Amino acid sequence: MRAVDIIIKKRDKGELTLAEIDFFIKSFISGEVTDYQASALLMAIVLNGMTPRETTDLTLAMANSGHMLDLSDVVDLAVDKHSSGGVGDKTSLAVLPIVAACGLPVGKMSGGGTLDKLESIPGYRVDLTTEEFKHQLKEKGIVLTGQSLDLAPADGKLYALRDVTGTVQSIPLIASSIMCKKLAAGAQAILLDVKTGLGAFMETLEDARQLANMMVDIGQLAGRDVVALLSDMNQPLGNAVGNSLEVLEAVETLKGNGPEDFLEHCLHVSAHMLVLGKRAKDLTEGRAMAEGSIAAGSAFEKFRVLIQAQGGDVSYVDDTSRFPRAEHVEVVESPQTGYVAQIQARSVGEAAVALGAGRARKSDPIDHAVGFVIQHKVGDQVEKGEPLFTIHANDKDKLLEARQAILSAHAFSVDPVERLPLFYE
Amino acid sequence: MRAVDIIIKKRDKGELTLAEIDFFIKSFISGEVTDYQASALLMAIVLNGMTPRETTDLTLAMANSGHMLDLSDVVDLAVDKHSSGGVGDKTSLAVLPIVAACGLPVGKMSGGGTLDKLESIPGYRVDLTTEEFKHQLKEKGIVLTGQSLDLAPADGKLYALRDVTGTVQSIPLIASSIMCKKLAAGAQAILLDVKTGLGAFMETLEDARQLANMMVDIGQLAGRDVVALLSDMNQPLGNAVGNSLEVLEAVETLKGNGPEDFLEHCLHVSAHMLVLGKRAKDLTEGRAMAEGSIAAGSAFEKFRVLIQAQGGDVSYVDDTSRFPRAEHVEVVESPQTGYVAQIQARSVGEAAVALGAGRARKSDPIDHAVGFVIQHKVGDQVEKGEPLFTIHANDKDKLLEARQAILSAHAFSVDPVERLPLFYE
Repeated sequence: MRAVDIIIKKRDKGELTLAEIDFFIKSFISGEVTDYQASALLMAIVLNGMTPRETTDLTLAMANSGHMLDLSDVVDLAVDKHSSGGVGDKTSLAVLPIVAACGLPVGKMSGGGTLDKLESIPGYRVDLTTEEFKHQLKEKGIVLTGQSLDLAPADGKLYALRDVTGTVQSIPLIASSIMCKKLAAGAQAILLDVKTGLGAFMETLEDARQLANMMVDIGQLAGRDVVALLSDMNQPLGNAVGNSLEVLEAVETLKGNGPEDFLEHCLHVSAHMLVLGKRAKDLTEGRAMAEGSIAAGSAFEKFRVLIQAQGGDVSYVDDTSRFPRAEHVEVVESPQTGYVAQIQARSVGEAAVALGAGRARKSDPIDHAVGFVIQHKVGDQVEKGEPLFTIHANDKDKLLEARQAILSAHAFSVDPVERLPLFYE
Repeated sequence: MRAVDIIIKKRDKGELTLAEIDFFIKSFISGEVTDYQASALLMAIVLNGMTPRETTDLTLAMANSGHMLDLSDVVDLAVDKHSSGGVGDKTSLAVLPIVAACGLPVGKMSGGGTLDKLESIPGYRVDLTTEEFKHQLKEKGIVLTGQSLDLAPADGKLYALRDVTGTVQSIPLIASSIMCKKLAAGAQAILLDVKTGLGAFMETLEDARQLANMMVDIGQLAGRDVVALLSDMNQPLGNAVGNSLEVLEAVETLKGNGPEDFLEHCLHVSAHMLVLGKRAKDLTEGRAMAEGSIAAGSAFEKFRVLIQAQGGDVSYVDDTSRFPRAEHVEVVESPQTGYVAQIQARSVGEAAVALGAGRARKSDPIDHAVGFVIQHKVGDQVEKGEPLFTIHANDKDKLLEARQAILSAHAFSVDPVERLPLFYE
């Protein structure tokens, strides 16, 4: 078997066999297939696509390229969740404690954004070893850490290539990249939260639906139980955008004081996870359990257990005023009276990165204190002069830029505007 | 400007600007654009194509990536020829001496196949320096050597990548690869011999026509005079296939004893070159000049001058019996009576490589003595038992394989079969 023949087959719109996909991934990891051959195949896949069967074979080949975590000696049924990412998405911080408090052990290896938020809590470790992961999952029933390096290394190597060769935008490649890590992490049931809208990776509902369907297909072909939700990402989720600001909002939500939309989002996701994990017989029961865990304080208590187990200073979540406050905190007032017609999530996300809350380059440092609190949602009625959003900044110039950017992200209407749905499907 | 944005533009079917193409090629040569980025762009070009304008810009960027030969101080008008390659194609060996004998100086840097043939003459050098090239062109009016390394290095680097990434088959990439070397070699007028048929790179007349049109477009946009011929490569050209066997056939042709089809091909190509080089006012005059040079012996004499100028032992072309003869020479008889309906050029070419006349890998040695002489052309009437072809081999097992392969390459018909045209357009 030769790499070049496999590339040519995909170039000519052929369907690759399991043996061809396995050979390519194994040889790529061993170095026999070069980066330039891999990037040629990736571009051919971007332009000519892959069937669900090919995508599943690619997913399994990547999952099998490293350590496959086996959690069967720790939990009866391992449930995982994945969000395709969005502005203000701190869902894992709230949902994991909720479902764990409801008796469903949940251990998650997370990507960059969630880890940045958690690291605003002094001492919190995101680099647990596999043994620490399993031990904590068994003893505490909740883990939230970074992805171990030996999990699906083929995906890491391929993704680094995709990033610089214009081959990120491909539903089969995105789906296999997400799913291989979930399969390697030992999940038997997976809840996928696929975001769609102007602030999401998948801008159109059609693309998001295709990605969700592809991931559900992969899961089923790989023998896993998968549920995909399509949720809105036209406006930020919740009010807070920024690392410690989002931890704070998650804490408030776990204490029962969260923003309505974010709470509703968390309850819906939690209910699905409880059903997938066979802790609830249906969504109604799952939702009631989730609400109960917040009301009883057990969800917040589980969050404290998580922070302590991973070395974090729990006094910060007990007293959130301990989080370092940004030097400049400015409340910006609404420039007009009317209905909020739009809050462009992407612009808000970009403004947060510009403030220092996220990274433009991998090597950039993170400022955990900066960000925004957006007071209103699309559909809200506002009076001219009432608070529209708050900026937390550590640089006066950046504050001014952010002020302009977030104002521009808002659009108003004199006529009433319909609220955006939280979920599409 | 970022390489990844250029790749994404072509991935999304955009038309690249001159600045983008120049940046990509310059950065590729400097190493800032990596091989894996180049191969991703190549695959996007294969699948999404390039306009004639983009292809011309790519051609010029590659031509300008190294030394641009200037022949204006040596010849009044530099004419070059290129053949897209085929089985038994020894055209340059005969055409260059013919046109040089007619007063048109011609210096050609050639690719692998022609060099292998010439190296069957002991001492013949194919590694002239640029200075030697210009000096010999001025003094002798004829040069035939290998391509200098500093000519269009971007093409060499890209081609090495295309070969192993399934990105060879693309008309814009093939056209720019051929034309950049011709432009860098200083040609003001170029005769292109584009082969089409089962033994050619371009199997269909449609593909060959597209390639020819693209190269003519590039030439015109780059201010050169270009004529493209579409010639047949369903059956081998001439009778001989194999290195010294083809030199021998070229010598016989220059002496007026060549096979009818090959002589006709050479006269037609020569006539076009003489018109392009402004030595003949039209094809009729050019053809008459070419015929005259053979009849007068001046074409053969020019061939002797070429061999001597490049250090070759001219006694071999004066007495071709001096060429080492293969150990086994076997005449194979026709298995039936009828008309030759097909002689599959590709099978003949592959059988010659298997005998050792060509390379399967770059590092393989060449056996200059082995090959075939095919006695008949498509349309010929043959009797069962009359000689059909002769095999020259240095290995008994390979001889038996070749016998079977060449017999299988022939097809017969009881009804008369039309001869194949030499040229389509």
